[in-house]
Order: sequence, then C-alpha cells, then structure tokens
Amino acid sequence: MTSFLAKRGTRRAVAIAAATAIATGTLLAAGAAVGQSAFVADSHRLSGDQAGAVRQAIKGGKAKNVILLIGDGMGDSEITVARNYQYGAAGRIPGIDALPLTGSYTTYSVYKDGVNKGKPDYVTDSAASGTGWATGTKSYDGAISVDIDGNPLPTLLEIAKANGLRTGDVSTAEIQDATPAVQVAHVGDRGCYGPDSAACGADALASGGRGSISEQLLDTRADVVLGGGLASFQQTAKAGAWKGSTLLQQATARGYRIVTDAAGLAGVAKADQTTPLLGLFAPGNFPTRYAATTATVGGANTPITCTANPGRLSTKLSLASLTTKAIDLLRSSKKNDKGFFLQVEGASIDKRDHSADACGQIGETIDLDEAVQAALAFAKKDGNTLVLVTADHAHTSQIVDSTPPTALSTGLVTADGTVMKVSYGTSAAGGSQQHTGAQVRIAGYGPGAANVVGLTDQTDTFGTIVRTLGLRTDASGHGTPGHGTPGHGAPGHGTPGHGQGGDRR
Amino acid sequence: MTSFLAKRGTRRAVAIAAATAIATGTLLAAGAAVGQSAFVADSHRLSGDQAGAVRQAIKGGKAKNVILLIGDGMGDSEITVARNYQYGAAGRIPGIDALPLTGSYTTYSVYKDGVNKGKPDYVTDSAASGTGWATGTKSYDGAISVDIDGNPLPTLLEIAKANGLRTGDVSTAEIQDATPAVQVAHVGDRGCYGPDSAACGADALASGGRGSISEQLLDTRADVVLGGGLASFQQTAKAGAWKGSTLLQQATARGYRIVTDAAGLAGVAKADQTTPLLGLFAPGNFPTRYAATTATVGGANTPITCTANPGRLSTKLSLASLTTKAIDLLRSSKKNDKGFFLQVEGASIDKRDHSADACGQIGETIDLDEAVQAALAFAKKDGNTLVLVTADHAHTSQIVDSTPPTALSTGLVTADGTVMKVSYGTSAAGGSQQHTGAQVRIAGYGPGAANVVGLTDQTDTFGTIVRTLGLRTDASGHGTPGHGTPGHGAPGHGTPGHGQGGDRR
Repeated sequence: MTSFLAKRGTRRAVAIAAATAIATGTLLAAGAAVGQSAFVADSHRLSGDQAGAVRQAIKGGKAKNVILLIGDGMGDSEITVARNYQYGAAGRIPGIDALPLTGSYTTYSVYKDGVNKGKPDYVTDSAASGTGWATGTKSYDGAISVDIDGNPLPTLLEIAKANGLRTGDVSTAEIQDATPAVQVAHVGDRGCYGPDSAACGADALASGGRGSISEQLLDTRADVVLGGGLASFQQTAKAGAWKGSTLLQQATARGYRIVTDAAGLAGVAKADQTTPLLGLFAPGNFPTRYAATTATVGGANTPITCTANPGRLSTKLSLASLTTKAIDLLRSSKKNDKGFFLQVEGASIDKRDHSADACGQIGETIDLDEAVQAALAFAKKDGNTLVLVTADHAHTSQIVDSTPPTALSTGLVTADGTVMKVSYGTSAAGGSQQHTGAQVRIAGYGPGAANVVGLTDQTDTFGTIVRTLGLRTDASGHGTPGHGTPGHGAPGHGTPGHGQGGDRR
Repeated sequence: MTSFLAKRGTRRAVAIAAATAIATGTLLAAGAAVGQSAFVADSHRLSGDQAGAVRQAIKGGKAKNVILLIGDGMGDSEITVARNYQYGAAGRIPGIDALPLTGSYTTYSVYKDGVNKGKPDYVTDSAASGTGWATGTKSYDGAISVDIDGNPLPTLLEIAKANGLRTGDVSTAEIQDATPAVQVAHVGDRGCYGPDSAACGADALASGGRGSISEQLLDTRADVVLGGGLASFQQTAKAGAWKGSTLLQQATARGYRIVTDAAGLAGVAKADQTTPLLGLFAPGNFPTRYAATTATVGGANTPITCTANPGRLSTKLSLASLTTKAIDLLRSSKKNDKGFFLQVEGASIDKRDHSADACGQIGETIDLDEAVQAALAFAKKDGNTLVLVTADHAHTSQIVDSTPPTALSTGLVTADGTVMKVSYGTSAAGGSQQHTGAQVRIAGYGPGAANVVGLTDQTDTFGTIVRTLGLRTDASGHGTPGHGTPGHGAPGHGTPGHGQGGDRR
C-alpha cells in the first residue's frame, strides 16, 4: 500500500502544488495549469491505483501473534479531531492512518432484562462492547464477560492462554476498568474492582462468587499486565484462601513480579507463568498527555492550543513504551513458541471526551497511535502478526463550522494554523458527555486483517482472532465437565488449591 | 464476500441463537452452552474467514462504466441511524452495507481568501466537497468546480464526455443544487441557479460570465439529467444568444427532450447528444419518503414511528427508479461503446439533518440505498462497472443513550421494537443543524474499487475514476490553447455558435 509505506513528518508544511497535477499525472490537461496558481496543500493520499497493494496486504492463513489495540471512544470524529490538530487536515496519523485494510463495525449492546431482554440497546458502554469482542457474545451495559443471564463466557485471553499462547493486557486506565477487565474477569457489574467494591454483590468471594476483577485477574494469570489501578490491589481479601491479605501480598505470594515505576519496569527481562509481570503505575487512571481543557458554551470563539500535562508519567511509561515492553516480554525466539495475544487500550480518549476535554482526548489519541506504530513496527518485522486497531464505541465530540449556541465547545489552533471548533452537545456543563451509537472504524494489518473489510459487528472480532490464531475454544482449560458454569463458577475458585491451569504456584 | 451474497429480509426477527456458537463453529466449548440460554439476536456478520472473498472483490484494470452515488450528509452516524430504524441494529442495509470494499476519506475544504487562503477549513459544504471529487482539487465553500481563485476546473462528467463516454447526472434535489451542479457547471457562488439569481455576479451571461448553473448545464449537455429544479428553468435568459427565451424554451430549441412527470419519463426510450434528456420532476427539491418530524428539547422522551409522506412523488420517480432509468438510457450493447459515467445523489439526507428531522433523513437514506441496490444489480450483471458509494460530509445527528438536556432530540421505535434516541446538538431549534468534519465512509464494488480502502481524501475519488475509466484529461474538449480559462471562460460560451463539442444543434 502506497500510503502504508509513506513516511511523513509530524507537522506538514502547506505545499505549493496543484492538486490536479497529482491526480491526473501525465494526462494533465495543458489548460488546467490555471488551477496551479492556487496555493493549496496537497490533499491527495493516493498516488496511483492501489489495487495491487491492497491485494498484497491481504494475507490468508494463520498468524502466530495478535495485537488488538482499542481506542476507547475513538470514533471517526475523534480520529479526525486528532489528525486535524496534530498533523493538519491533509496530514496522516502515522500508525492509525497507515493500516492497509479498513472497515466499520457495529457496537450496540443488548438489554439485560425486562420486556426488551436481549434486544438491541443502541449505545453501548465499554463493558458490553469489550465483552462483545472478548467473548463473541453481545451482552448488557456493565457486563464484564458474562452473558445477559450472568453466565461467564470464555475470553480471548483465556482461550489463547489455554492454547499455550503467551498473553498480555495493557491499558492507560485502571486495569480493573471495563476494557482491560473483559479479558481477565467475569463479573455482573463493572464496578466490582476489588474486595471493597459494593458493586460486586454475588460476585464477591465472601458471597461465594468468583471474586472481584482484581482477584480474578490474579487467577487468570496473564504473563504481562500493565496499567493503572494500584489502589484496588491495596485492598484486603475478605474471603477465600487469601482472606486477610492485601491483593498485592497475594500477588507476591502467588509468584507475580510487581513493578510500580519506570525503573522497575526497565529491570524486568522476563515474564512468564512462573513469574508473571504485574505493572501498576498509578493508583487510578494514568494522567493524560495533554493538560485538560474545558469546553464551555461559546468556548470555540476563543481558540487555544494544547499544552503538555506536567503530571504525565515518564515517557518510559507511555502507552507505546508499555506496548513495546509487553511485546518484548511476550515474543520468543523459541522454535516451538506458540505466539501471543496482547490487548492494548488507550483508555482516556473516552474519559476526556466524557469531560468535554478536547486537548485531553487528542493527546490520548496520539498516545494510542504511538502504540499502534510500535505494534506495526514489530508486526512488519515479524511477518506473522495480526494487528487490529478499533474503538469500542463512538463518542460525542464533533467538528463544527460555527460555534454552537447551546452545546459546549472548544476552539483549537491546529497544525494547519487555522481554527478547528470541537462541539460537545450530548450533556450540559459538568455532566458526562455521552457515548454515541455510530458504527466505528476497524482497521488491520497482517494475516487475517481482511476480516475487517466491509461491515462487521464487534462480536465478529472474537471469531476473527480465534480463527487467525487457530485457537481451539474447547481447550480453554475452563470447561471442566459437570461444572455449572464452565470453569469459572465454582466457589473457592481463585484459591491456590483450585488455581487455573496456568497458576503454577 | 459472504456479506455481499447474503440476502436478508427487511426486518429481522430476533433469532434464538447463541452468538458464541456461530463465532466458534465446531470448536465451541461444550461448557459454553450456558451462554445459549440467553435470547440474543444473532449479531455476527461474518460466517468465516473472508480473506479470499475480499481478495476476489479486488478487480484490477479498467472499468467501462462508473456509477458514483452520493448520500449528501451521510456520515457513519446517519448510516447507523437508518440501519437501526429500518432493519434493526443487527440488520443490513441491502445496498450500502453490501459493498465489499470499504474505507474512509477526509472531506475538508480550503479557505478562499484572507490570511488563511488555501488552508484547511475543517467543515466543508456540499459545493466544495463536490468540487473535490468532480475535479480532484480542493476548493472553498460555495465553489462549483472552480478553484480558490475562481478558475474553472474540468469535471469528471465533462472529461468523460470529451472521451466519448455517455454521461448522466441524477439527484433528488434541485438539479442546480451543489452536488449535481459540480459536474456540469463552474460558478463562484453555488447560489447562481438561474438567470434571475443575484448570486451569479460576474458569472452571469449579462456580466460576460459563463452563465448560471442552469444555463451551463444546457451547454455541458449530459445525455441524461434527472432531478428537481424546474423553477429555475422557467427563468428567462438575460443575455447571450438565447436572451429573452426561458431556459425551457432554450433547451427545447437546442434539442433537449424535457419531461416533468413519471408518464413522460416512461415514454423516453433513448437519450443521446441529438436528443439529451432533461427530466425536471419538481419545482424545487423532491418531497421526502417519510413525513417530516421535528426534534425538540426533551423530544426523545416521547418515542414515535416514522410515517409515509403523502406528498412523495410516484415511486416511478424514486431515486432508484431514476437511477435504473438513467442506466437503461446510458448503457449500450454496441460493440464499440465507450461506456458511461453517472452520478446519483440522495440529496435530502443532508437537508433533513439540517432540519433535525430524523424520519426525513432516514427515509432519504433508505431511498439512496434502493438506488445503490439498483446500481449494484446492474454492475453485477454487467461485470465491467465500478460502483462507488460515499458522502460529501458528515452531519449532526447522533445516537445517544439518554435524552440530552439542551440538544434537540427525537425518540424512534425501531424495527427491533426498542427506542433509539437521535440527538441534534449543533444548532438551536429553528436553526440549521451543522455539517460536521469527521471523515466519512467510502465503499465500492467492481474494477478500481480497491482504491477506496484505507484512508483517502475526497479529491482522490477524481483520480480513481479517471484512472479506472482510462480517461484522457487532455481530451476534455475544454483545453483550447490560449484560452485564459480552459474552455469555459470565453464570453459568449454557451451560445449555439460556440457550443461544446457535444452540442450538435
């Protein structure tokens, strides 16, 4: 793909070039030179027929590794907002825009109960949408890899692990947040972060459940888990074999290596089932790349520029750095290596969009893009890796021409030197801007990536990854016959004696 | 492509099927049957690896015909709104969703003058965006196929005609409206509809210009023009060879066959350069398919259902019918036939979105889709036709979870039997909801369609069509050497004696 190979600077100068000349090449009409008098940036992204390049980008067969990158709330509008600001309208987001195969998928969730039980709920939350791709099954808002009746569903990460692959889960959010949680836990309410969470209800160990997301994460025992959410691990187990110990103590006792800063992470050279890596770099969510801005009614009339967030973590803990570290730890040069499955989330595109924070969401999109670049760099070198980049749902931010009369808005002076007005109109000041229900982009590179082309549903991503990795879903290590809920539901599950197949302590 | 071949009913029943079973096929874990207890509609759109099908959908080489269908204002949100309402969230829009190759393109326009001259204007209007694909050159809001300095730029339709192809231009809007106009006229202000339009300024014949859009349309002399906008043709020329005659009189004198109703259209068996067809079926824009609804603050709390618009024209004049008629008139079984270029616009998705009319925009999206189905049916049978479907820009409507506090909204009971809330938040009640700047979907079928995959710009569509049809842009018939503005600028142009190559009167 021409576009895939092209390298561009981060900020593009306005080129003195006639767009027509590029489009028509040698067939340019002599008289059309009049069009060349206009100083217009080169808008063209194609330099010729790309049919051959697209055909070449379609790789059949299996991949050894899959890296799934999620921009939380990264609809087409959020992508365009970030491109316009950071690279200019004619620019190219180096990773996101470089993926050669593209399509859209639908993201709706379903109602849990009442007369609409099982029917579409047109605007999903991150829990239901994550459950969709992690398990291949639609569920209700708030569900963490359980179906609408509360039954646990095997996740991609669990299935990959049971098939002998190495696994990773990376996020800039608390690692208990919905998107990272859907790969490692099964709870009825996404708020069930730790033993102290009232939201756990029947899922609490003390109630005979599978335990909180943090506790289940330790049971699931991915090789590499990197994110925020340290606070929940400082809570103390209320029941089970680890009753009375904090989750950090439990993790250490179960063989995890825990790191909480860049130096600690740099010191890790190996992560596996003997010593899985648990990196928790913030009590809650990561601070954002850019300092927060606040949209106001009429705000777009006073354009601003984004500034760095002084509270941002070390760039050694950027999403790209964590992604690179995770890949380094999961990859193997062993001949019989079965490959890896890694999920990476840029979490705060969504969170900042909720807060009508234009600079915040832009910075997080750029941060995710750097992680996409890291994943692509590995995949291109490796040649046997599927990279998928998508969102869990669309969001509120819209690019408008005029300052909207009632919606909140922010004006931004972009890389082009002109003003982009971003509108937030689904909630009032101080409220939370809403997710939206539009289909979103899914794009891919590598074997299996052709399955993103056209219109798919979020739940299809599960099947695409299962097929591309050649996973057996009946080998998930959870399907103990006679188990009421396959491998997840037994009381006491999560205690050392009942550990998952991979828990070797 | 599996999805391309699949036929589904217009309204889908909620299937009693476990999504997991479909996704994992024979590899289904025995224990996963618990998931099957939930009654959830089958959400999956893929039934297996589609890499081979996508590869097969990529046709290299040239196409004989191109049909370009534009959903005005049909962003991904508008597509999803229409799907949810008409077919359900798990449903499939029969034409739009069936296109096998997909991508996104950027739509920004550029500033005409001032310090920002030539720099990106992040939200385009339909004139600048149409100019983008019709000429391959970015221009300013309001421009009809002129560059930012006002110089005319050869259009796809003009170039195709000069290459010996047959040409057509179809819209549900006034045919002078921006999208149809960009193929047949060159004016500095899109409001220059007819001789009476004050907006014409220096473009008026009386001012030594090229004349209004309606007058230039007669000069350009496409084989088939079908749409609204009869009123402008009832105006009287103020200068030039046809001074004192109405444009309808002029058209008749210049050999056009004029029809104004379904019976008249049905009677037309042939349209060519001897007797081009001018079908004008409404004084202004076509009435919409569904009766208009009005979004209000809090409106989504009182859900409604869309109803038919009693004022709609005969279905024999639906966009699908006009598209089928145009294709029938443009196609040829002659061995040496050079093929055709046809542009079709579903205009009022945009217009109803501006008016915060959810049912209106949905009906127009469905109407466009029927035209897409007609185009695809021909293309599949023909085997030598590129079909492209895209939008000129994104728009305001958003699907939200909760009724927004300040934005206008409408609640709709959908095909699923649940409520979809549609929000319009970029203008106040009575104002015009704004276009938005998000990248939009472009999808295609047939030779050359691979050029929509990935990220392109609106202006790339020009090059894709030129290349796929193998057009010589130096044979446009407009490039008279020494002409200040190539083939368009000569005063008196449009008079019979100075007629375009194709004007054989």
